[in-house]
Amino acid sequence: MNAFSFLKLKTGTEQTMVIDKGQSPEFIDNYLRVCGKYITFIKFGWGTSAVQEREIVSEKIKSYKKYGIKTYPGGTLFEYCFSKGFFEEYLLECKNLGFECIEISDGSMDLNPKDKDYAIKMAKEYGFIVLSEVGKKSIEKDSEFEILERIELVKKDIESGADFVIIEGRESGKSIGLFDDKGNLKKEELEILAENVPVNKIIFEAPNKNQQVDFILRFGNGVNLGNISFEEVISLETLRKGLRGDTFLKS
Amino acid sequence: MNAFSFLKLKTGTEQTMVIDKGQSPEFIDNYLRVCGKYITFIKFGWGTSAVQEREIVSEKIKSYKKYGIKTYPGGTLFEYCFSKGFFEEYLLECKNLGFECIEISDGSMDLNPKDKDYAIKMAKEYGFIVLSEVGKKSIEKDSEFEILERIELVKKDIESGADFVIIEGRESGKSIGLFDDKGNLKKEELEILAENVPVNKIIFEAPNKNQQVDFILRFGNGVNLGNISFEEVISLETLRKGLRGDTFLKS
Amino acid sequence: MNAFSFLKLKTGTEQTMVIDKGQSPEFIDNYLRVCGKYITFIKFGWGTSAVQEREIVSEKIKSYKKYGIKTYPGGTLFEYCFSKGFFEEYLLECKNLGFECIEISDGSMDLNPKDKDYAIKMAKEYGFIVLSEVGKKSIEKDSEFEILERIELVKKDIESGADFVIIEGRESGKSIGLFDDKGNLKKEELEILAENVPVNKIIFEAPNKNQQVDFILRFGNGVNLGNISFEEVISLETLRKGLRGDTFLKS
Repeated sequence: MNAFSFLKLKTGTEQTMVIDKGQSPEFIDNYLRVCGKYITFIKFGWGTSAVQEREIVSEKIKSYKKYGIKTYPGGTLFEYCFSKGFFEEYLLECKNLGFECIEISDGSMDLNPKDKDYAIKMAKEYGFIVLSEVGKKSIEKDSEFEILERIELVKKDIESGADFVIIEGRESGKSIGLFDDKGNLKKEELEILAENVPVNKIIFEAPNKNQQVDFILRFGNGVNLGNISFEEVISLETLRKGLRGDTFLKS
Repeated sequence: MNAFSFLKLKTGTEQTMVIDKGQSPEFIDNYLRVCGKYITFIKFGWGTSAVQEREIVSEKIKSYKKYGIKTYPGGTLFEYCFSKGFFEEYLLECKNLGFECIEISDGSMDLNPKDKDYAIKMAKEYGFIVLSEVGKKSIEKDSEFEILERIELVKKDIESGADFVIIEGRESGKSIGLFDDKGNLKKEELEILAENVPVNKIIFEAPNKNQQVDFILRFGNGVNLGNISFEEVISLETLRKGLRGDTFLKS
Repeated sequence: MNAFSFLKLKTGTEQTMVIDKGQSPEFIDNYLRVCGKYITFIKFGWGTSAVQEREIVSEKIKSYKKYGIKTYPGGTLFEYCFSKGFFEEYLLECKNLGFECIEISDGSMDLNPKDKDYAIKMAKEYGFIVLSEVGKKSIEKDSEFEILERIELVKKDIESGADFVIIEGRESGKSIGLFDDKGNLKKEELEILAENVPVNKIIFEAPNKNQQVDFILRFGNGVNLGNISFEEVISLETLRKGLRGDTFLKS
């Protein structure tokens, strides 16, 4: 039971995706006691899982599982392995390590639509939950997308079988995806997106507080958010529940 | 005994208020071994204590007590409960959980002066140390205050019985209270404030290093500072003692 | 063995210097299990070791030693002790605590060339590995250096016997050393530096990701980098190995 239970606050059913950047298993075990119940997905950011010991990666995945949290390596690692011709080795190693999801992205490489479709389907066949991502890591390349193109890419990934589609926001949240160079949300583009795709299938990467606030005020406290840092999980939960100045009594 | 004790550095009697944003009990226990002696108050930031398990909140309060640190929930939680008609439930739950202080603020809601006076006195009657806060969470609303108005509000809270008055700085330290949009201190306003209120009754929220430096260089190493993050407690102590470039040999 | 070992990623022989800002011994022990193998030097930042208990400082140094990591107190503490006439006490206390290196800097004080030469030689005589630093903590003073002056200072320190020379970047990485006020690398100055000094003797302080990326893209994954925060050690290792968008497949 939470403290101040007379407030009868309700916990939602939204998706919250948090980044593991290489924290220690003990740090995570301890932190999960506090905030594990608010996390749906953990992403081992970009290629970080490939520079950590196998035992450590497995140990952390087991800790997450105890809280019902599903894990996957960042899409960059998929891209790295795919581009080196190791896609099947990648899927097998993910299985062996205990990951339950796969992210299929093309943020750092060019992947033709057929290959992305194939990769999503292949990962589904291996029994993974599939999160795809739309967007480029490079500011220059990402800025070439019109919002209508992004929408087409989202739709295509859903058709291919992706369970969720992530809108790129990187760890910085600036000059990327739906954010301008100051990290502010491009609200007109967001509205066009929201009219054209099922928002409950989307996970918005929103590393910064003002971004989390904007999404919550627009879509309600049940909006799916990603690239949350461990340190901000409790803060995000207070934003969702109207317990911080920015969303006070508003959700 | 500290390392390099031949320097005969002295620890002051100032107040240092640190934010607990939902860290784990173990993280805190371990960190306090290093920096517990430099902390006076811990604020469970805004509404974070209401999204954590009762046992965890109590456990952390006990850890803090071992170091003589006094704890309280952020003012936003008071405001939330007060506006929902749960003020007495709030005070009782704080007692039961082991909090020793209460923050009375109106950063996110409108509270007429009579109600603020009443709330401060009520919290005192329940036996709490009372910290009041002056300032608004919203940049627009906060910017409407003239410095002379802030001074009046500070004086009124002290008359009502507040043990300390906090000058709002938020977690960001920008465009709020005494800080401009770049987080720089408005030094003229600070001087007017300092002439009109007892500075030892004030806790300046100063989350960023340049702000801590400015307050220390102006008021000496004994100035009361708040909204310090756990990671910066040791850094702040070096600033207070002239052991970092910014205040080198100056305090 | 790391996860995803089929990628046969190679670990380099570069120097990575990480800042200990006063974290707890337990936090560090746990973190080192994950990233200890990627760290060469730990700097107890500026004067932080002088505000921590002797036992805690010693305990952490021992933990680091288990991973072959060499430790030293920040140069600011040397400057503080030197300017107070406690240089020998300083060297002895460092020995007793278990530090294996000394940083000789003049970032916060004026130190004439003879004194810097003397200090470097003295620290060598005491059996320490010596890291010297070139640069000023103050933005105004640091900006007075022409790049050719910096080069002369680097050369002089190497002649005096410094094992490595650190180029000042502070914890912020802005308006200092080789960085402009936005934290961008001044590439022309870097080229002049690289032509005139042995780069493998230099440790570039590069606290921000874009800076780490620029150095890796210019000098390869073996470049020596410093002022890395604990939280970013794993990230840096992925940058070095081409496993993050910014250096994808490039190193």
